[in-house]
Amino acid sequence: MSPKPAGGTVPPMGATNVTWHHGEVSREERERALGHRAACVWLTGLSGSGKSTLARRVEKRLVERGALAYVLDGDNLRHGLNADLGFGPEARKENVRRVGEVARLMVDAGVIVLSAFISPYRADRDGVRALFEDGRFVEVWVSTPLEVCERRDPKGLYARARKGEIADFTGISAPYEAPASPELEVDTSQDDLDACAARVVEALEARGLLRA
Amino acid sequence: MSPKPAGGTVPPMGATNVTWHHGEVSREERERALGHRAACVWLTGLSGSGKSTLARRVEKRLVERGALAYVLDGDNLRHGLNADLGFGPEARKENVRRVGEVARLMVDAGVIVLSAFISPYRADRDGVRALFEDGRFVEVWVSTPLEVCERRDPKGLYARARKGEIADFTGISAPYEAPASPELEVDTSQDDLDACAARVVEALEARGLLRA
Repeated sequence: MSPKPAGGTVPPMGATNVTWHHGEVSREERERALGHRAACVWLTGLSGSGKSTLARRVEKRLVERGALAYVLDGDNLRHGLNADLGFGPEARKENVRRVGEVARLMVDAGVIVLSAFISPYRADRDGVRALFEDGRFVEVWVSTPLEVCERRDPKGLYARARKGEIADFTGISAPYEAPASPELEVDTSQDDLDACAARVVEALEARGLLRA
Repeated sequence: MSPKPAGGTVPPMGATNVTWHHGEVSREERERALGHRAACVWLTGLSGSGKSTLARRVEKRLVERGALAYVLDGDNLRHGLNADLGFGPEARKENVRRVGEVARLMVDAGVIVLSAFISPYRADRDGVRALFEDGRFVEVWVSTPLEVCERRDPKGLYARARKGEIADFTGISAPYEAPASPELEVDTSQDDLDACAARVVEALEARGLLRA
């Protein structure tokens, strides 16, 4: 046995403990067929920090390499599964909880899930982390500073929040709790999109989730 | 152009309308890599009819063929995403709605989803069907008769429902609305498990979802 590397490298295929009964097919069988491990890459950061754009660029890179990757973000969640939820603290908590549970199912199916949600509360993110085995959850803090996000303001939301037209707006009228020890930190105002995407892919390789 | 066969065969890859914005990767690119189409196979029927067992046998057959299939059932939903829901009519409705939305996300990611829920109300099942493009939703009525299900009673639930210990028990104290025109009907008291599984796989092949 080699020593366990820092950062939670996933054990060899077939050696993991599964979290629930899988019936006749194990995730290991799926992963053998897919040629990569399944994982949840959780991007957290302010509105306008570049989470969704980055997630979709990483998705593209992974699919080009033949991996099965899929982005969960507001576009496909808020209109469907979470259409019944608002933006107050309790609704945000339930939003993050459901996304975490969907990510868990998809990871169980063999997918590399890239989730892109503000997910401002540390406790909620840690609740999602607890759903996954060690090394399967990769928290990426998209730490683009507030002033840059506000200058970008792609949907005009910051301007409206400053005018008081949007309540509970993260960074303006609601808190953002930065991750204490994320697996990776990227700032899309410091590095360009492809450089940030490359760093996410390298983080997956370094954890043994993806073949280098 | 060949005429459209009955039963909603899926159009050639690249010709489908997508239901929402996918960013940089289309489902067609995923499907080309996976070598099969994505679909939602929705098994509906009474408790004890054999839905979950059948779903898991089909999953095994598909994964053995190199397809990415995944079962959604009470085991992995009721303990996670839907842990907050009970069994009354409204909770059942919300349960089915969420499963449908999760299936939609997984199908979007390229997976053949096999869902195994009693889903007793026709309107709720039709609501799920409406989430999918024509030909991507395959409703399978597991029509094993009530008396057989009750004789099997694998979890002792029918006995408890007859004693009045369980409220809203489908087939005893709550209705089951049989599908009017399912894509397939199987009765696990008439055919053995492997024969039923083979019929589901054939139905996928016949619809162009899976290579024969």
